[in-house]
Amino acid sequence: MEALDELQALIKKLPGMGEKSALRLSYHLIKTDESYNKALGNAIASIKEKIHPCPICGCYTEHETCIYCSDPSRDRSLLCIVEEPQDVLSIASSGAYNGLFHVLGGAINPLGGVGPDSLSFPQLVKRIDEGDFKEIIIATNPTEEGDTTALYIRHILQDRNLQLSRLASGLPIGGDLGYADKLTLLRSLRGRVRF
Amino acid sequence: MEALDELQALIKKLPGMGEKSALRLSYHLIKTDESYNKALGNAIASIKEKIHPCPICGCYTEHETCIYCSDPSRDRSLLCIVEEPQDVLSIASSGAYNGLFHVLGGAINPLGGVGPDSLSFPQLVKRIDEGDFKEIIIATNPTEEGDTTALYIRHILQDRNLQLSRLASGLPIGGDLGYADKLTLLRSLRGRVRF
Repeated sequence: MEALDELQALIKKLPGMGEKSALRLSYHLIKTDESYNKALGNAIASIKEKIHPCPICGCYTEHETCIYCSDPSRDRSLLCIVEEPQDVLSIASSGAYNGLFHVLGGAINPLGGVGPDSLSFPQLVKRIDEGDFKEIIIATNPTEEGDTTALYIRHILQDRNLQLSRLASGLPIGGDLGYADKLTLLRSLRGRVRF
Repeated sequence: MEALDELQALIKKLPGMGEKSALRLSYHLIKTDESYNKALGNAIASIKEKIHPCPICGCYTEHETCIYCSDPSRDRSLLCIVEEPQDVLSIASSGAYNGLFHVLGGAINPLGGVGPDSLSFPQLVKRIDEGDFKEIIIATNPTEEGDTTALYIRHILQDRNLQLSRLASGLPIGGDLGYADKLTLLRSLRGRVRF
């Protein structure tokens, strides 16, 4: 069946989808309510028309600027630098941060062809020079690429009078020592805190 | 963001999708190529217009009848009864079966509100009475509902001169005794074959 094969092939291109799960979803979509299929189909087809990056920070928005940049109640002396737009949501929804954001658009990964030039460092430096930030929180991922990116940010910002910090690494809350990998244990030992 | 929230809510309704995976897919769709989104969106929105059940066997088709019912090279003395349309594909793609199919549309599950009346038993009996079948292979799932359905099929077909068989149950190939559940081991012991 051409239509089914086409749908399956398209679904298979989504991240985390294999041959079987794509087929299962395709069959599910033949069984579901037609109005749901139309709604989902239209939502997918039109999402890129509705959502665009905020021209200031780079996170996604439906409006001229995002809800964080346009919110006067947020602390404009704090800037949190993240890799991807979805990281903004993760940090904002933690409830522990009330400053502004900057989305780099990825992390430095020379082997993957991502150098500093492909990320939004010029915009970052410009924002910092024109703004009134006191603390910069580097919230790149605790991976090799995230570490490299954090070092690079420290390098380009070191001459400015700013407090730089980075998210703590260690054991996840609710985790189990027995399941923690060696690197996480190493980091949580090196970064041990007074108790 | 309304558009993103709506997309996430719609994706979350798909089987196997949680809050996080729906969010991850939504963000992925904002980043992907627009033409891909349009193709996927249209494929989802239009799948029910293109595909319908075969009026003879009940499996899905884009044409008047399905590729199995309309294929003159298939053995018309063999009928394989399955629960769902996707089961037809699983059995056909095993390459070990060259007969016809009949899709029940589910399995008998009194607690779930599925009685024999909601499945295609009348069509099954009519097909068997009008056809020239010699063997009926019951390929319902090896679950309580599938077992009940198999017993019911045996009950309604017992007066006819037909060979009835059911798919073998036992250890999956490539499996490991240590990981097999008790019921599977019990079935594979009871159904042990001469070697």
